[in-house]
Amino acid sequence: MKQARISEAVIRRLPVYLRFLTELMKAGVQTVSSQELGERLSLNPAQIRKDLAYFGEFGRKGIGYNVPYLVEKIRQILHLDRTVYAALVGTGNLGRALCNYRVYLEENVKIVALFDADPAIVGTTINHLKVQPMEELDGTVRELNIAIGMIAVPAGEAQLVADRFVAAGVRGILNFAPTVLKTPPGVRVHYADFTAELYSLAYYMEEDVLEKGVER
Amino acid sequence: MKQARISEAVIRRLPVYLRFLTELMKAGVQTVSSQELGERLSLNPAQIRKDLAYFGEFGRKGIGYNVPYLVEKIRQILHLDRTVYAALVGTGNLGRALCNYRVYLEENVKIVALFDADPAIVGTTINHLKVQPMEELDGTVRELNIAIGMIAVPAGEAQLVADRFVAAGVRGILNFAPTVLKTPPGVRVHYADFTAELYSLAYYMEEDVLEKGVER
Repeated sequence: MKQARISEAVIRRLPVYLRFLTELMKAGVQTVSSQELGERLSLNPAQIRKDLAYFGEFGRKGIGYNVPYLVEKIRQILHLDRTVYAALVGTGNLGRALCNYRVYLEENVKIVALFDADPAIVGTTINHLKVQPMEELDGTVRELNIAIGMIAVPAGEAQLVADRFVAAGVRGILNFAPTVLKTPPGVRVHYADFTAELYSLAYYMEEDVLEKGVER
Repeated sequence: MKQARISEAVIRRLPVYLRFLTELMKAGVQTVSSQELGERLSLNPAQIRKDLAYFGEFGRKGIGYNVPYLVEKIRQILHLDRTVYAALVGTGNLGRALCNYRVYLEENVKIVALFDADPAIVGTTINHLKVQPMEELDGTVRELNIAIGMIAVPAGEAQLVADRFVAAGVRGILNFAPTVLKTPPGVRVHYADFTAELYSLAYYMEEDVLEKGVER
């Protein structure tokens, strides 16, 4: 059954809901209200109800949402029942930090290969993954059926790495370099840009001041 | 003059538009169409026109948007004419990577203080900023009028750091730790969660396959 296209904003919030709901589930909590969710996630409860209503009527008034059911449903919506393989280029500070996040990743997106252009780093091991030279990128991406390329290199090198990934056949790129990439149609680029988060935070703080007169 | 509340999704896209438009401006490009913007940013041109229409009619049919005017307008909307100070706790791989991003930050959000709990790191210098001990957090946040606390520590320590920031008087927190934080009303928390980006990318790649039959 095909669902209506879900807005990008909702899709970005779902993993945040999922993380918190999974924490609740592990703690044995069976139900949660949109009010509680909103308080913990700094989101408007009405927004949360609207987001979750996209997927059918989950909540029951006065009782709240069934946590394990909601977890399962969000996993389904995000296609977390399938596994997608990812490769990471760039093992500087950022790349290493991303490798450390691997333990937090759900089963469905797996970082299975690391690449770096620096001969001094190639051959070393980061979190049980061996860093490969760039020459092996094409072969490894094809061999391991890698669909997502993650780019954590300086801005000036990001386009070259993207071109390599595209040539090797990835269908999606997650770009951490603060630059805009050019890719052919059919290859989706998402930008993991912390400066954008910082600006949007600063924006809303300013708006809070203007609207609610929050004390500075 | 007060504007209508702008949706969070739009606010998150504005810095991406701004980065690309600034690149264009530096290259001397005077006008750009929503089609070109869409191609470069992997966004729907109709979406871009809708986003920019929030702020008045910028574009002219057949001519496109005036780049320098759009840059100035987006900067105004994002309040980039004011300066907000930020402090960062946690100078591991992620924290160091964030420090390196400082050069890309616009003037308006400035990381002006670094903190770490590790005595071996305290006193060292990262990108011209000295790492301070956690005991100095409260005093420095007040003294430098720091409004944003950035958290780049392991998930298990993030709430403690958030509590310290809140006690010191920050109004916003940008959390990089993969955990949900609890803060009092009036303190806004944004989550910079790369796993959420990765999931949303995987989601849309799957949707592309289902909808357009993109070859796997």
